[in-house]
Amino acid sequence: MSFVPTGMHHENIAGLEVVLANGEVVRTGQFAMDNSVNKHLTHLSFGPTIDGLFLQSNLGIVTKLGLNLTPQPQAYISCVFDVPEFQDLAPLVDMFGAFKKNGTIPGQVCCFSIIEWSSLAKPRHEYYDGPGSIPESVIGEMKKELDAGWWNARFGLYGPLHVIQGQLAEIQRVSAREVPQGRIRHETFQAGTEGALLEANSIPEQHGGMFAGVPSMYSIPMVNFYNPKEGGGVGAHGSFSPIIPLDGKTMLKWVTIARRVYEKHGMDLTCDFFMNRNHAVFVCMLCFDKMDPKMRQAIEDIFEELFAEGKNMGFAKYRAHINHMDQTADLFDFNNYAYRRFVQSIKVSIFFLINNQPPPPLPPPTHIQMLEDQI
Amino acid sequence: MSFVPTGMHHENIAGLEVVLANGEVVRTGQFAMDNSVNKHLTHLSFGPTIDGLFLQSNLGIVTKLGLNLTPQPQAYISCVFDVPEFQDLAPLVDMFGAFKKNGTIPGQVCCFSIIEWSSLAKPRHEYYDGPGSIPESVIGEMKKELDAGWWNARFGLYGPLHVIQGQLAEIQRVSAREVPQGRIRHETFQAGTEGALLEANSIPEQHGGMFAGVPSMYSIPMVNFYNPKEGGGVGAHGSFSPIIPLDGKTMLKWVTIARRVYEKHGMDLTCDFFMNRNHAVFVCMLCFDKMDPKMRQAIEDIFEELFAEGKNMGFAKYRAHINHMDQTADLFDFNNYAYRRFVQSIKVSIFFLINNQPPPPLPPPTHIQMLEDQI
Repeated sequence: MSFVPTGMHHENIAGLEVVLANGEVVRTGQFAMDNSVNKHLTHLSFGPTIDGLFLQSNLGIVTKLGLNLTPQPQAYISCVFDVPEFQDLAPLVDMFGAFKKNGTIPGQVCCFSIIEWSSLAKPRHEYYDGPGSIPESVIGEMKKELDAGWWNARFGLYGPLHVIQGQLAEIQRVSAREVPQGRIRHETFQAGTEGALLEANSIPEQHGGMFAGVPSMYSIPMVNFYNPKEGGGVGAHGSFSPIIPLDGKTMLKWVTIARRVYEKHGMDLTCDFFMNRNHAVFVCMLCFDKMDPKMRQAIEDIFEELFAEGKNMGFAKYRAHINHMDQTADLFDFNNYAYRRFVQSIKVSIFFLINNQPPPPLPPPTHIQMLEDQI
Repeated sequence: MSFVPTGMHHENIAGLEVVLANGEVVRTGQFAMDNSVNKHLTHLSFGPTIDGLFLQSNLGIVTKLGLNLTPQPQAYISCVFDVPEFQDLAPLVDMFGAFKKNGTIPGQVCCFSIIEWSSLAKPRHEYYDGPGSIPESVIGEMKKELDAGWWNARFGLYGPLHVIQGQLAEIQRVSAREVPQGRIRHETFQAGTEGALLEANSIPEQHGGMFAGVPSMYSIPMVNFYNPKEGGGVGAHGSFSPIIPLDGKTMLKWVTIARRVYEKHGMDLTCDFFMNRNHAVFVCMLCFDKMDPKMRQAIEDIFEELFAEGKNMGFAKYRAHINHMDQTADLFDFNNYAYRRFVQSIKVSIFFLINNQPPPPLPPPTHIQMLEDQI
């Protein structure tokens, strides 16, 4: 994923070459036609589209792939929209949801909690050195120090100057009306001469960087947030990252629950989320000091509690550490895990029919196998 | 397909329910989680994405489906961009390709030849009643009569007024410079009061209709284009519809070849095409009078010649009449038809593993089976 309009990379692939487990090489879409001139121009197939089978899967190894890129733009507007209070999240989310649906913001919008925003600047003990979670009064000082809101939405507008100026004008018009407590800050960057294109590297990193498509390590200091004042810490992070409806009321309920879970363990709501048309990919960051056994345990507990709360609200993760992949897969339970059984049958079929050989023995019993036994 | 920004419907589905041939019901994406609140908000899966298997396929019957829609807009600008001469197609295509890639035009652009544009108004014999194809001189009169170009690109801009005004300004700026022989005509429709939304039905049909999302039969008269002056004709149409790179030079070469094929048989280049980021879906319309055996034969011959020319240029069709589906599928020949063999193995696997039963016998020999015998 990246932040430009084609940043949802898996939605912008066109023509794969895949090596299957039996050694067969398959090409997809127009790439399946030997002399095609459209090999990587479109994902359109004649017949079923199989590309998705090779995303987040072990059904094959992708050895070639076409990817649509966002062309170098005439201009770029770096934007931050922030709101002062915790509960302002609800109107912020509803407004950006409308912008994503009606085409005002084609790219990715990433919204950070003040805690995560602060974690990019310096370690936690420089903001607060007392017991338990950072109190709301200190959060108030952090907002002042960083000139930030409780919630901070970063995004870029890319493309022809006329188009992105129109987008900015609409954002200004609507936000003044819908979220008057919010503040929009923006800066425009453009190539100097008519028809010229903007160099992404010419944008200062605080405005551009990965938001303008330039790889960057700017968010890495976050992992050291909980390292001890006295030194000797080794920063790390996990995450609980559910898919959540892009609905202000639901999001506010979720962050209220998540914050309670973090604070029960003396930690803080370190989170960000990415807004799409109808859903957000929400990242509950779990930064910790690897050298601190108590903190390691707290992070495990927070993960499990967030997982249970998310499951209860009907959320599933879109990605998982291998330690959590089975528990995540188990959420997809419709019709006795029909999705999983279907994918499993495809996996076995790769060995079977293509080679015109008898099928291999079934895999050894696992929790997946147990489900089959119930059939 | 429709003309609004989410008009590529298969790219906007989220959460399918499918009945497989063995009677199993499978749900995809977040819909596979029984208590999910994201069922139809996103196509994101945990694990491989299987949705594409049920597009253009007989691997199952889709019984439920979520679909993202374009929200009712504040405003809509109906646009037509035309160019006077046949060879002006090349710069037109290159310009619109750039607009599609850089986000200036999020919706569909449909470009019509003057012949197809004319066919919407009245039958061919009212323009030309002589032998053979319509001569260029008569085409000149048709352009005058209809106040149209040789090529006519129709599209709509939908959304917040500020945004679509920015898009129009960019189109005007670039087209004046890149395609000065072209002409842009546009009309803006908006709801009367601040914050109100536009009713699609309030737009006059010549500006709105299916371009504003309202189902319409406006293009149906096209099928009667070749009906005889003396009456008694029954209009029909087929098509040859290849995927073509959105590249001016390639497109001009293709229409030159296609026009020669049509005119060899006394017919005319009745065509339109839909512009996407990198490719066009090109429709060589094959309108004919079903009561005329000679014309029926000519249409068959034109189809086969267009198919051969397209294959030679590396184009495949994205859709096919069942009479032509095998010849189209045969174009996807990479690695001894690996794509087809892979899809076939999935089809058999549906009967096999999910029920934990032995596989059914292989299907009877067909031209598909013959390929397997070569393995």
